[in-house]
Order: sequence, then C-alpha cells, then structure tokens
Amino acid sequence: MVEIAVMGYGTVGSGVVEVLTKHCEIIAKRAKEQIHIKYILDHKEFPDSPFAGRFTKSFDTILNDPEVRIVVEVMGGLHPAFEYVMQCLEHGKSVVTSNKELVAAKGAELLKTAQKNNLNFLFEASVGGGIPIIRPISQCLAANEVIGIAGILNGTTNFILTKMISEKMNFEDALALAQKLGYAERNPAADIDGLDSCRKICILASLAYGKHVYPEQVHTEGIRGITGIDVDYASAWGGVIKLISMVKRLENKKVQVIVCPMFVSRENQLATVDDVFNGILVRGDATGDVVFYGKGAGRLPTASAVVADIIDCVKHFKARKYLFWEDGSPDYVEDYRENKDAMYVRLNTDDEAAAWKYICSQFGKVERLSRRGAEDGEIAFVTPMMKEKEITERLEKLSGFGLQIKNTIRISDL
Amino acid sequence: MVEIAVMGYGTVGSGVVEVLTKHCEIIAKRAKEQIHIKYILDHKEFPDSPFAGRFTKSFDTILNDPEVRIVVEVMGGLHPAFEYVMQCLEHGKSVVTSNKELVAAKGAELLKTAQKNNLNFLFEASVGGGIPIIRPISQCLAANEVIGIAGILNGTTNFILTKMISEKMNFEDALALAQKLGYAERNPAADIDGLDSCRKICILASLAYGKHVYPEQVHTEGIRGITGIDVDYASAWGGVIKLISMVKRLENKKVQVIVCPMFVSRENQLATVDDVFNGILVRGDATGDVVFYGKGAGRLPTASAVVADIIDCVKHFKARKYLFWEDGSPDYVEDYRENKDAMYVRLNTDDEAAAWKYICSQFGKVERLSRRGAEDGEIAFVTPMMKEKEITERLEKLSGFGLQIKNTIRISDL
Repeated sequence: MVEIAVMGYGTVGSGVVEVLTKHCEIIAKRAKEQIHIKYILDHKEFPDSPFAGRFTKSFDTILNDPEVRIVVEVMGGLHPAFEYVMQCLEHGKSVVTSNKELVAAKGAELLKTAQKNNLNFLFEASVGGGIPIIRPISQCLAANEVIGIAGILNGTTNFILTKMISEKMNFEDALALAQKLGYAERNPAADIDGLDSCRKICILASLAYGKHVYPEQVHTEGIRGITGIDVDYASAWGGVIKLISMVKRLENKKVQVIVCPMFVSRENQLATVDDVFNGILVRGDATGDVVFYGKGAGRLPTASAVVADIIDCVKHFKARKYLFWEDGSPDYVEDYRENKDAMYVRLNTDDEAAAWKYICSQFGKVERLSRRGAEDGEIAFVTPMMKEKEITERLEKLSGFGLQIKNTIRISDL
Repeated sequence: MVEIAVMGYGTVGSGVVEVLTKHCEIIAKRAKEQIHIKYILDHKEFPDSPFAGRFTKSFDTILNDPEVRIVVEVMGGLHPAFEYVMQCLEHGKSVVTSNKELVAAKGAELLKTAQKNNLNFLFEASVGGGIPIIRPISQCLAANEVIGIAGILNGTTNFILTKMISEKMNFEDALALAQKLGYAERNPAADIDGLDSCRKICILASLAYGKHVYPEQVHTEGIRGITGIDVDYASAWGGVIKLISMVKRLENKKVQVIVCPMFVSRENQLATVDDVFNGILVRGDATGDVVFYGKGAGRLPTASAVVADIIDCVKHFKARKYLFWEDGSPDYVEDYRENKDAMYVRLNTDDEAAAWKYICSQFGKVERLSRRGAEDGEIAFVTPMMKEKEITERLEKLSGFGLQIKNTIRISDL
C-alpha cells in the first residue's frame, strides 16, 4: 500500500480522485501496489464528499507524515505551489503535477532537487492533457536528435480559429461561443494571448534539448489580431491559420522558440487538428515526423495523465525516472528578430501598381495572394524567407512609402 | 560500459549500428552508460565494414559471453529467432527486438520467461516503426480502460490505397508503383493480404487487454479486391477506404479483432493518414481519442525505436520494465461473424426497381449510394448495423434472388 496526498480539489484534483477510485483494481494491478489517498488539501469544505474525512487545510500535516510518499500537486499557480512542491521534494516525497506554470518557471530547479534526493518529479499532464508527450519525447525519441517541435498546444484558441475558418465567425463571436461552451474562461487572456501555449512549449523545449527555456525568453503573440480576411488569404495560399508553438535547434547551439499565429499548409498534419484538440509534431533526425493528437485539456484526460504518472512513480521508487534538464541562461534563446521566416503581409494602398512595384523593389520576388471580395487597394503577399529584422526594416520602408500595413502572419516551415 | 550484441545485419540491424555509432555521445548521456557493440551475428561476410572484426556466425559465442547483457534481435522470421531469443532470456540477457512475427506468435511465452529471470523483453519497434506506441499504451494510458484501438498499421497498403484514391490508379498499377519505389516487396502478399497488419494488431491487442491474441485467431482480409468503383462509392458516402486493424473489448470479456479494408469517415483522424504513413487511434475511457502518426517503417525510424529500447533496457537493469500479458485461449477472440457492423454492398442487377424492393425487404432502411458514371444496373448501399452473420444470410438471399454481389466493405465505427 502506498499512501499519497492530493493538493487541490478543483477540476483536475477531483478528476484524479475519481480515476483512482473508479479504476482502483486495474491501477493496483499495474502499479503492483494499492494506492491510497490519505489526504486531500483544499481550503474549501466538502462535507458531503465520500472523502470528507480525508480533507485537510494544513500542508504541514501532509509534509510531516512520513507515510505519504507521493504528493500530487494540482492546485495550479506558482505560489504556494512552488514552495509546497520544493518542501515535499526536500522531505523525501516524490511529486506529480499538472501545473504547467510551475514546470515552465521552476522545472530545472525542481528536477535538480528531485535528483539530489533520488525522488521523482513527473509532469506528463502539464502538456497536451491526456496525450502522452513528455514520455515519448524523453524516452522513445531518446535515440534521435530532435530537429524541432511544432504544436497546437491550446484548445481554446484552436476552437476559436476553427470557428473562424470553418464557419466564418469573427473573433469576438467565436470567443463568446467558446466562453458559452466553457472552453474559454471569463478572462481569456492567458489562452488567447498565447501565455498558456508559451508555458507548454517552454516545457517541451527544455525537455527536448536539456536546458531550461523560461516563458519570458519566448516571443509570444496571441490571436486577437486575426480577422476573417486573413483566414481567407490563408486559404488562398493553401492552408489555415493556427496558433503554433515552435522550437528548433539552431546551428549556433541556441534554440529558436516562438508562439504566434502561423499559416500552416494543408499538407501538414497539424492543419487538420481542429476544435479543442491539440496536436504536437516532433521532427527527429531518424524518425522523421511523428505527430501526437488528442484532447489537450479536460478533467478526465488530464486526470488520467496524472494518474499514469502516479503509477509510474510507484513503480520507480527504486530506480528514478530519468527526466532532467539544466538551468537556462540569458542568451540561450535566440532573439526572434534573428529567425528566418517567410511572412504573409496584408496592406492597403491608393495605387496598387505603384505599391506592387515598390514591394518588389524591397522584397524581390513575392508570392501574391488574392481573395474574392477584396476591397479596392487591398494587397496581400508572402515574402521570401529572410531574417525577421530584415522583414521589419522593409515593412517600415513600405509604411514610409505610404502603404498601410494591416497585418503580418508568419509562415510555418516545420 | 554495457556490452551488447546485434543479431542480423540487414536493413534494421545496420540502421541500429549506425544510430548507436552516430549518436553515441548523446546515447551514453541518456543511458548513463557507454553502449558497446561487441558482436554482430550474420551469416554473410562484411569485410569492408568498419565493424568487420565484430562479426560472428556463431550464436553460441554471444550466448556464452557473460559480458553481453543485451541482445538485439533484428533477424526477422520466427525461426531461429524464437529459439535464440528464448535462450538469451534463459541465459540472463535482456532482449530488444523489432520482430513483429516473433512477438505476435510468442510474446506471452517470451514475456513470461523474461519476468521469471527478471530481465527485459522490449519491442517498441515491432509496431509503428518510429512511432512511440507500445510505451504510450502500456504506461501513459495505464489509468484508462482502453475501449478500442484502430490503426493503419501497414505503409505499403496505405500507399497503394492513397494512389487509388487521390490519383485514380487501379490496384495493379498502384502496387507496381509501390514495388518500383521500394515500398512493396517483390512478393507483396504479407503486406497486401493483411498479414503484417494482423501481427501488429495482435501485439497491440495483447498489450492493451493483457492477454495474448494470436494471428490465426484474427479474421484478416487484404486489399486485392478493392476497385476504383468502391473508392468512388466511399467518397460518395463521405470517406475513404483504409486497411484498418481494429480491436475492441466486448461486454462478454472477449475481444473483437479484425483486419480488413473499411470505409473511414473524413471526420476521422485516420482518414488523413496517407501514403506510407501509419496512424493509430487509441480510445480510452478517460482520455478520449488519442492518435499517433508517423512513418511506420523504414530503416532509421525502426532503428531509432530499437535504440530507444536499448537505452531503456540499460536504465532498467535493476527495475524491470512492466510489460506483460498472459497466454491466450481459443475462445478469447469473438467469432467475427458475431461482430456488429454496417456494411457497404455493391451489386449488379437487371431490374433496379425490383432489386431495391427486395433489398429493403431484407435489410429494412439502407443508405443508398450513387456515383457518377455508374453502369446500368449497378447498385450500392450501406446496411444498418447488424451481426455479420445476419448480413451474410441476407446477402445469400440477395444472390438467390439473382442479384450479383460484386463487393462488400465494412464501415469503421471507431
């Protein structure tokens, strides 16, 4: 029998308790031990819960109970989650978490403490909900050099973009629908401004290349600026707009990491990842492209990933799972203005002929895009691949020439 | 330093040696040990290989060398692979294999021997080439009840079907092209008759439900009978034809396992798995649908999966990986005639009105399909869901009525 504690009885926490209870036999068989929930930490009261007797408001009760060998942190947020997890690891308790904010900000530190104390710190549920991705990257692709990872890591924004693409909704209506269906929070900023995706790609990047990437190092753009006009041009180009989180290894040993809306070709497996689903493409030098697809969030998918980690933890009390990355450094992530991209540009002009002439004088050969119902003077094109800072310089010249830049969106090349 | 032996220096074997050599530093870091290839077993000579000094023709040399702790079996075929692997496990050596024939026929037996001797027997590369699937099913989905698995597990047949769908090629031309490109063997029977897919679904079914399913228990149909006409009807119905390998848990505790061409709805993630790619959909009660996509074969993808197993093996000399299923039994797999399906039926008649009337008298309400360029008297429809044996009985009556059944294809419901 292994005693565990669950910290946080919200959506994920109650899901974890449900899965552990519902599947207790099969889980005991797989873990080769009975798993017993000794404490549930929550500041609220749950007098009607069948687990009422196990609730506590005291973290110290958990920390100081030597019987508790695994602590499940599903509180969310950075504080006090970080302090609690750190103390657990220092008191000989392995930790399983679904908290992407915690892992993205403090992963290296916590993994180091776990390693020092010969404990496990596992976080499969922090990225991709129920999609297995942390293990596949760390284990199955162990024999590969990871060339890059591109993911649709946030279901809320993917739902909104899908509605904008397939049902021609505008952004505001699609967001309102997402909120109505419970896919978006009342304050949707963390999702639609890309922060949630940013935390997740930080975790994947840190894992894939062994060195911590912090959220503040990642250039992050959300989807507020996307319009139906851009959706139409993406379609004319041969693809769809997705909020892509991407990491690539550069030849100078730095990494390129970015979160932003991108044009994704219809040929790409990520183009058909719709609605609230997530998709993660991992490109290895030996495996080629491998794609993982599934529900990236939700109570039971996330809970089942947490429980899988608990089982793995029970099976690996003796042999610690190898999951580790070192601290990051300020210059490890390349300045995004140094990235090479092709860029979709949409602008308005009074004189189309003169505009095209000037655009070509700045960018050389561009790919012109057209759409049905375009307004007079509306121009859209895709630049050749060049450094972002060079694109920016040229766009500034276009503005100086009197062209009104309406939007720019990067073209995905992974 | 860990000494290993590689048995078989064909496509996969030479790939394993290449990956181990090319990535030796990163692999040593991940495995926390140097991995050294002490022997390569092959009956051929490779005098110009940089590994020339390590080749041997004697299995006993490997078996009797106590330094060799891991043996990689990439010879293929059942004999002598089975005898060699069994002896290795009985002599204290862990085994990693890519041999699906071996695992599908003898998995339970070999896993039992591995468990008895506290050794690992790993086979990630046996299904899905470089796609991580064995571990995700056994570990990450540990907290789920697997409702079912549906996969496109054979790249050759998927390439042929893709050409028939997107380029309107007929079966013979598509097969010839696959052979020309090296995707199909000169004798393509194992692929196009479904045997390769059958072995792989046996492995996944055994793993997912903990009890061995043997290839001879699985009703298996290949793709030789698929015509362009059927492809057109599938399109009219709203999908594509794929060679699907499927397993489902039944309420009577048996499993339903089948390999056959199926109509797959365009909504299904498997519908966009094209060319030589594989896709595997795992439906869990908590996770919902999770899909794994990638190259299911090829030298380096398969080799990288083998090497990932070798690394895992090195990391788990002390704590054996939990991978196990029990022996099968004759009545464990449900007779496929008891399965409930909807079925596409195509037939010819001299009297369409009379034919439809008789069809409806037998099947009740059917979904009629039509295609451009249909010949006179050509009829196609989809039956309601019913037991296969009932469908067969009714089709026999249709034949008795003078209707000429040209083809039948199941509709995928996973």
